[in-house]
Amino acid sequence: MSDPAELTIAEASRAIARRDLSPVELTRACLARVERLNPALNAFVVVTAESALEEAARAEAELLAGKYRGPLHGIPVAYKDLFDTAGVETAAGSAVLRGRVPDRDAAVVARLRAAGMVMLGKTNTHEFAWGTTTNNPHTGPTRNPWDPERIPGGSSGGSGAAVAARMCPAALGTDTGGSIRIPAALCGCVGLKPTFGRVSRAGIIPMSWQFDHPGPLARSVEDAALVLQAVAGYDPEDFATVPVPVPDFADALVPDVRGLRIGVPRDQFFGLLDPEVLVAVEEALEVLRGLGAAVDDVESGFTREDIIAAWRLVNVEGRLYHAPWLEQSPEAYSEELRGVLLQPLPEPLDLSAAYLASYRVKEAVRRLFEQVDLLVTPTTMRAASRIGEDPVQVEGIELSTGAAFASLTMPFNVAGTPAVSIPCGFTSDGLPIGLQLAGRPFDEVTVLRAAFAFECATDWHRRAPAV
Amino acid sequence: MSDPAELTIAEASRAIARRDLSPVELTRACLARVERLNPALNAFVVVTAESALEEAARAEAELLAGKYRGPLHGIPVAYKDLFDTAGVETAAGSAVLRGRVPDRDAAVVARLRAAGMVMLGKTNTHEFAWGTTTNNPHTGPTRNPWDPERIPGGSSGGSGAAVAARMCPAALGTDTGGSIRIPAALCGCVGLKPTFGRVSRAGIIPMSWQFDHPGPLARSVEDAALVLQAVAGYDPEDFATVPVPVPDFADALVPDVRGLRIGVPRDQFFGLLDPEVLVAVEEALEVLRGLGAAVDDVESGFTREDIIAAWRLVNVEGRLYHAPWLEQSPEAYSEELRGVLLQPLPEPLDLSAAYLASYRVKEAVRRLFEQVDLLVTPTTMRAASRIGEDPVQVEGIELSTGAAFASLTMPFNVAGTPAVSIPCGFTSDGLPIGLQLAGRPFDEVTVLRAAFAFECATDWHRRAPAV
Repeated sequence: MSDPAELTIAEASRAIARRDLSPVELTRACLARVERLNPALNAFVVVTAESALEEAARAEAELLAGKYRGPLHGIPVAYKDLFDTAGVETAAGSAVLRGRVPDRDAAVVARLRAAGMVMLGKTNTHEFAWGTTTNNPHTGPTRNPWDPERIPGGSSGGSGAAVAARMCPAALGTDTGGSIRIPAALCGCVGLKPTFGRVSRAGIIPMSWQFDHPGPLARSVEDAALVLQAVAGYDPEDFATVPVPVPDFADALVPDVRGLRIGVPRDQFFGLLDPEVLVAVEEALEVLRGLGAAVDDVESGFTREDIIAAWRLVNVEGRLYHAPWLEQSPEAYSEELRGVLLQPLPEPLDLSAAYLASYRVKEAVRRLFEQVDLLVTPTTMRAASRIGEDPVQVEGIELSTGAAFASLTMPFNVAGTPAVSIPCGFTSDGLPIGLQLAGRPFDEVTVLRAAFAFECATDWHRRAPAV
Repeated sequence: MSDPAELTIAEASRAIARRDLSPVELTRACLARVERLNPALNAFVVVTAESALEEAARAEAELLAGKYRGPLHGIPVAYKDLFDTAGVETAAGSAVLRGRVPDRDAAVVARLRAAGMVMLGKTNTHEFAWGTTTNNPHTGPTRNPWDPERIPGGSSGGSGAAVAARMCPAALGTDTGGSIRIPAALCGCVGLKPTFGRVSRAGIIPMSWQFDHPGPLARSVEDAALVLQAVAGYDPEDFATVPVPVPDFADALVPDVRGLRIGVPRDQFFGLLDPEVLVAVEEALEVLRGLGAAVDDVESGFTREDIIAAWRLVNVEGRLYHAPWLEQSPEAYSEELRGVLLQPLPEPLDLSAAYLASYRVKEAVRRLFEQVDLLVTPTTMRAASRIGEDPVQVEGIELSTGAAFASLTMPFNVAGTPAVSIPCGFTSDGLPIGLQLAGRPFDEVTVLRAAFAFECATDWHRRAPAV
């Protein structure tokens, strides 16, 4: 067998079930890659090698004793440094929380532990997840496995780089404006933002109470579905979750989009794109059409201004969440984040309009799903930029990294609807391009089914960076 | 048989099933009471007598043909004037919308029509539902059937008065700060605010996108459960609804609270109460204890300031919703409502704090339900005040009608959790007193079960005003 770290969860899981692979062997293989690659990529900020091997040994003993916890049993996983992990430092990429060791797992971590996953460590993010590049002044930049001079995207960039570089088959991230889907796009993996309320946020350091969504980054749609299955569900500890039944996401793994009505909202999502991104996305739409989907243009029904306005709510929430620490130890914040958090708050009417804008976006997206079953767009306007490059260029126009990378993902945070980014091609520089598929609330099955059909018809997700 | 209008839905339904009563007979009986009582009570602003009789005749024909739509088939109902009703004026108690005739039913109206209910008309509310007294400058005050000099509570006061006066067995209302539960308490009927997202708001003129909840007012817990059954469920037209399964609310109709953990949050709900309200509520708690519930004090975990702060969001939403009309035709608004809507918006930091406060309340209520299964409180601080009396007194202290009547209901709008008001006694002046029972999100079954057990053990809900 080649390097077990190269296996997807589904492949590793089958090998484990056949006893062709042991969790310890798999964990060792992943840790070996972490050891070899992490010094250059800086995807992990904490590696829990010792406890990982203990957990893997325990999984192995359970499996030998016939106690099978399911397809994630014995599979390594990593968590963005926002997820509380009992006994393991959780600092949210900040200096304020450096050395903070929670005594309890986040709900998602507890669920994956119960499913038998083996924690490899914590992945890099921005200071308190505020950014889209994963260039953290305290922990250093994470580098993109496809080109170490480039960003992995953010704020779950450590998770994206770790998965893309085959350091672990899956990692958890959070997505407030695109922070799962952006690194998935820029690192060439699968990143799923579930419906708001599908996955508990209990024990995750918040960025926004309204727009935060935890979810998996993985190397295939099937793997993302397997992780979602284990983490989805009502949690009385997160008031945003609701007791909506959790479907069997294996139902999504049927490569069939015949008759599916796909909407392409060109007005808000195709206005400014890198030409290579545009070509890859148009080709992807052709693939979906070829598979039998009805692909048609639709009008978004919201404006860029609506999204920007709604996003102001996140700044306000951030300001409030950080206020006590900002007062006590302002010097523990980078000047940049301090500047963001302390920027003047919007005028009352503007702030009020922000509310209204967020409802307008929700309502517009709801109406779109009266016409179509799925929306398909590029995930980002361009592929990965160089570390430190800000502004970045798209078609000769200068944009902030936030605008260039998060403009196309944010609408689905405001709407709260599920969205996935999957690989759909590469630029001539060999950088991955992401395709975004968004569905109705709580209809991850349709999103994943279309993504799976695309994946079966192409092989973009099988390409690995030469690291 | 005595006056069929005196029957509850369940009783009328059984009589209809036995063919002892026909929908036409029942509708005529209700219309006769409307004709007799409405001139004095002003509960209805529109009476659709002709179409009601047509609908009743149709229901009768269907029943005779063996097409039984269920327990609501042939039962009259009325709608607060906020609910769109196809072909029937829906003005939200305003001059701005006077003469507005929607061409489509609100989702709830459509569901009850499909269940076979017969619409009697539209009930009075405040101008755009902004108030707690149902004293509307455009349509006149609704009078409390227990004492016509007194308010019925609001803003679903027309619905409360209509149900209490036996003009119809049930009416729909909306509850943004207590507007179903307050008139239920002051008129001596049952008013249920379901979980936020349990019932669609599509086609209902909004007051607040975050806190509006439609629900039934009825004369028994069973009747409220029957109406909830028909209106509950996911609706893609309201982004707040979620595909949570709708339980069989008949499961709630078991008078058993043995072992139920009931929390009494005295700090926030008992601080200032009319002594007769306090006595009635303490006696109600004794009844529940006697039935086997474990009744214990709990600490609310939020403050009055949190609720007031969170409520600011409603003012902001109102201002935004009404802005175009306020600009075009300010004179069409009463001076009072114009004053409310045009009051200075809160400072940015206060407005931001309003967000935070609403999360704090949600989180506090969530924690309460870790300790107990149900919260029980008074619904209002006092019984019905005199029409035009504002401020009102509670224990010698002057309060606005909003503070006196909505302070104890608002927290469950902010939390989004289900809450019911049921009759629990009378003042020495013969005015009804309401008991509020609040439960976990989407756990209306427990709320209704405890309310049903209380109802079976007492007979407060059977008392009718001498009209």
